[in-house]
Amino acid sequence: MTDDTAKPTSPAPKSHGRLAARPTVRPRELMTDTPDLVSAWKAKIITLFPTAFPGVLGESLTGKGLQDGLWQIEPIDLRIFGDGKHRNVDDTPAGGGAGMVLRPDVMGKAVDFALNGAPVDRDEWPLVYLSPRGKRFDQAMARKWSKARGMTMICGRFEGLDERVIEHYGIEEVSLGDFVMTGGEIAAQAMIDATVRLLPGLVGNAESLDEESHSHGLLEHPQYTRPAEWRGHSIPDVLMSGHHGKIAEWRREMAEKITAERRPDLLNDD
Amino acid sequence: MTDDTAKPTSPAPKSHGRLAARPTVRPRELMTDTPDLVSAWKAKIITLFPTAFPGVLGESLTGKGLQDGLWQIEPIDLRIFGDGKHRNVDDTPAGGGAGMVLRPDVMGKAVDFALNGAPVDRDEWPLVYLSPRGKRFDQAMARKWSKARGMTMICGRFEGLDERVIEHYGIEEVSLGDFVMTGGEIAAQAMIDATVRLLPGLVGNAESLDEESHSHGLLEHPQYTRPAEWRGHSIPDVLMSGHHGKIAEWRREMAEKITAERRPDLLNDD
Repeated sequence: MTDDTAKPTSPAPKSHGRLAARPTVRPRELMTDTPDLVSAWKAKIITLFPTAFPGVLGESLTGKGLQDGLWQIEPIDLRIFGDGKHRNVDDTPAGGGAGMVLRPDVMGKAVDFALNGAPVDRDEWPLVYLSPRGKRFDQAMARKWSKARGMTMICGRFEGLDERVIEHYGIEEVSLGDFVMTGGEIAAQAMIDATVRLLPGLVGNAESLDEESHSHGLLEHPQYTRPAEWRGHSIPDVLMSGHHGKIAEWRREMAEKITAERRPDLLNDD
Repeated sequence: MTDDTAKPTSPAPKSHGRLAARPTVRPRELMTDTPDLVSAWKAKIITLFPTAFPGVLGESLTGKGLQDGLWQIEPIDLRIFGDGKHRNVDDTPAGGGAGMVLRPDVMGKAVDFALNGAPVDRDEWPLVYLSPRGKRFDQAMARKWSKARGMTMICGRFEGLDERVIEHYGIEEVSLGDFVMTGGEIAAQAMIDATVRLLPGLVGNAESLDEESHSHGLLEHPQYTRPAEWRGHSIPDVLMSGHHGKIAEWRREMAEKITAERRPDLLNDD
């Protein structure tokens, strides 16, 4: 057994008021101007494509939350922990077969680095591997994660990650859905989006969060806006009536109807 | 009723051998050097964040496929079809409530523009709206879409899209999963990733596609690679035996065991 635990060359993170210093092995060009905010929800992402972040998350509401320091993202470049001159991260599958598998020694070093300074309690700081073999991500998981202080996400690539790493750290496998992607980066972005938008203050109007699909086990009712008449189609009369009780009743009925038609499984879950 | 159908100022697309010319209203800086390839699978994306594409899809295997002309992406900036000096795209919900709804007149023009020159048959060219109210995206849908010539995806934002647009065009609503995101852009990227990796030639080794999770209704078996011993954990003996029959049997057993433990619903579906 080789000793391949990560040896950070800088001291452990220390808090200086609101800002936290931490050792980093990210190349300078990947660092942002955003300082580490102790109170911010934080996503550490182990990936071979660190420049993919924040991506679309840097736009719109999530982008504003990022700028306002409500949340933060720290991509950790797996390549840096790679082996030898070529910084190899993968090797052929034991027992044969197609593709390449991410090496346990390389990923182990990256996970050690990511865990350094993060809370040990997995409820406070989940450690997940994005994989089509995992539990399906859903709104309840997003709500749970949004109450943590942050989390570490491992993005898979190739044929996946050596199983020993998953077992050694007790990593939770989470799937974006019943389909396969070339890597975990887009899945990470989707889950971060769904999670950080639940952070207090990110979506200005909390009412929006309350009414939407998957918040009460129902799909959302249809929406309409101006113009009242468009290519021969009118807005339903009830919505133009100004009668709040009838509008609320119509919306609830429509939500139930649409859910029953499209996703009867959501109704059976209760 | 106002006449708000799109009036393209350029003539309809014409084929000149392998390249196709088409009218475009995208600002010059959003245009790529990649010419339109008639044979390439193409995603047209109606979005308020056209610069979000290709994003991570420009990396790795999907990025190589993009460069090789196996597939193409055409972001269509919804803002361009916006109303008035400020190019408004949204308005308050009819009947009241939180947030804003995408206007039917604005989206109608963008959809007309996207449909211009695309096959009318929806099997050849699906038209989908990414929404948590839709049918859940899965591997079967990715396979179906990968056999089309391309598709048009509408990314939602805010409280959603005026229902009349969905009904008028018979748009298929598709959901990435049972959770809510700030917009459809990441969902579009996830679905494009899952779809284009099934295009012939994109994943070099077709065997990889055959063995993976959700291809045969089972989750994939565990993977291992070198080193044989890592932090006291060994690779299972059977994988080191060199006995191909036993390895295949072990992998099938493990796939069935993991599926039964984690996703019994996949086994019941058969």
